[in-house]
Amino acid sequence: MTAETQPLKLSDLGRRSTKLESLGLKWIHNELWILDQRLLPHEQKWNRCDHPQMMVQMIQQLQVRGAPLIGVAASLSIAHYAQSGASKDMISKEISNLKQARPTAVNLHHAMVRMEQALQHLVSRFQNADWINELTDQAVAIFNEDAEICDRIASHGAHLINEDDHVLTHCNSGGLATAGIGTALGVIRRAHEQGKKIHVYVDETRPLMQGARLTAWELEQLQIPYTLICDNMAACLMKDRRVQSVFVGADRIARNGDFANKIGTYGLAVLAHHHKVPFYCVAPSTTLDTDCAGGAEIPIEIRGDSEVRGTWGPNHSRVFNPAFDVTPAEFVSGYISEAGLKFG
Amino acid sequence: MTAETQPLKLSDLGRRSTKLESLGLKWIHNELWILDQRLLPHEQKWNRCDHPQMMVQMIQQLQVRGAPLIGVAASLSIAHYAQSGASKDMISKEISNLKQARPTAVNLHHAMVRMEQALQHLVSRFQNADWINELTDQAVAIFNEDAEICDRIASHGAHLINEDDHVLTHCNSGGLATAGIGTALGVIRRAHEQGKKIHVYVDETRPLMQGARLTAWELEQLQIPYTLICDNMAACLMKDRRVQSVFVGADRIARNGDFANKIGTYGLAVLAHHHKVPFYCVAPSTTLDTDCAGGAEIPIEIRGDSEVRGTWGPNHSRVFNPAFDVTPAEFVSGYISEAGLKFG
Repeated sequence: MTAETQPLKLSDLGRRSTKLESLGLKWIHNELWILDQRLLPHEQKWNRCDHPQMMVQMIQQLQVRGAPLIGVAASLSIAHYAQSGASKDMISKEISNLKQARPTAVNLHHAMVRMEQALQHLVSRFQNADWINELTDQAVAIFNEDAEICDRIASHGAHLINEDDHVLTHCNSGGLATAGIGTALGVIRRAHEQGKKIHVYVDETRPLMQGARLTAWELEQLQIPYTLICDNMAACLMKDRRVQSVFVGADRIARNGDFANKIGTYGLAVLAHHHKVPFYCVAPSTTLDTDCAGGAEIPIEIRGDSEVRGTWGPNHSRVFNPAFDVTPAEFVSGYISEAGLKFG
Repeated sequence: MTAETQPLKLSDLGRRSTKLESLGLKWIHNELWILDQRLLPHEQKWNRCDHPQMMVQMIQQLQVRGAPLIGVAASLSIAHYAQSGASKDMISKEISNLKQARPTAVNLHHAMVRMEQALQHLVSRFQNADWINELTDQAVAIFNEDAEICDRIASHGAHLINEDDHVLTHCNSGGLATAGIGTALGVIRRAHEQGKKIHVYVDETRPLMQGARLTAWELEQLQIPYTLICDNMAACLMKDRRVQSVFVGADRIARNGDFANKIGTYGLAVLAHHHKVPFYCVAPSTTLDTDCAGGAEIPIEIRGDSEVRGTWGPNHSRVFNPAFDVTPAEFVSGYISEAGLKFG
């Protein structure tokens, strides 16, 4: 990354001191850098995002991913756009585009609503340079709040993990998915930091291997012992009582507690229920969609065939590739948010 | 394949007319050819098996796979060995080695016990050339019986599939796994041949993708409509009532009805049970192990880490890779064998 060598821009002056850094995102001198998560763990390539339309692509291609993080990243891309001199209407249009970049995670929607409301409010109250900086502050606040929320979530959840527990997680809900230490993986990390001897079973998470690529990479860095498994091996681990609890993130939680998360979560929840293994949904309150009465109303993104087909099968295999599934509330032992633990 | 151009061997004379052919195995002029299933569907490469030790390797590397087929292939490799002039003791030793090539599928064990008994019996009764040919006939009979068994299984099972049904299958239990049309996939094929409009959901079957590579390839050739899914997508299909029944093969069935099959089968069985989707275990009676009282006694093969780790994760990820799991009898709606349908 070469941000340090970029020429100073006039608009940077007021916010030179603001520097944000998470595992997958950096905001330095009003420049937004994204770690390309498609290339992990073997390559760590940071791409500069110069326009909200580029952020839409980065989100859709999963360069940046994780329900909380895409809301944060989209907000900062709007701040950058404002700093670069875009008009109120231009910003408003890009907020609208970003809101639709991916349909399932509601955090992105919430972050964009918040940025739009701030935009309207600030433009009506402040001079040009001021509303731009105030809007930037709003995006920075979204980042900082998410990091703090992760921290509080971890504190609320860590006591659910006991000494010598083997916990199972699906997909990636760690530092790469948030501005902080993560949601479900943050809880696991906190338990480890508390000195508990724990072991993590990592679902590889087909088709895009977020578990094998991202969660394994994070756990390796944190030196938390883990074992990688194929998604279809979780059931026999539960049968053999080798899993004491399951922690997963969420992309949208409906009013009734049904929630969408990475494909495979629902099956895992049914299996945990059958084997009487506690199953926790871990997410910030920005994941709650109060407009959504139940899981059936959550829009599920269907992604491209090639993600599943890969290079293995016949070239023309028909494919079903929902990126998420919905877990009914009845399978959730508890929800962990920054507000605390709520039993399901 | 170039078997036709091989020089005629003296020992071939008596059995020149015996020609066996299944989707993944050929026996022509006393030569044994194996379709390398690791390379499917993109490459169809036939390798000649010239020695039982080579067959051990082919079985362990999964060039040849499928519980029934490895028993058949091992038997023919013993026949070939006898034809090549091996002594009774040499043959006996190789039978013993082959028996241990893979631990879970009992068909291999049963086929080797049968070949050993035939060897002992024939050597004591016949002259040299004669017992060799009689032993070869025994292996040929094992092939032919397996093909006939598949046919009878299909006849017994096909009526369980109704017009417009969407059926789910795991791994590959088709022509590539047997000497005939397959077991679970044979039932599905027969229903299609009966003119029923059906659709097959194919579990890709991590880690080795037997569904995506082999079952999809077979269905493509048979022109049976199918959709490829990741293993972790089966649950949401069941929830949405898009699967009417599940058909899987088996590698070993215990006396109490518990059975081992490809990893992922147990989870699928629990999910089917939860969603009240009929779940059928389809296998020849050679898969029954009467010495085995229950599933806990079935030896489960643990395979190499690299099969799971692939090129995705950190290079040193600890991995759990059981090739099979055990499904308790309580989750089985019915067992389909050549003897008929027995409800679970």
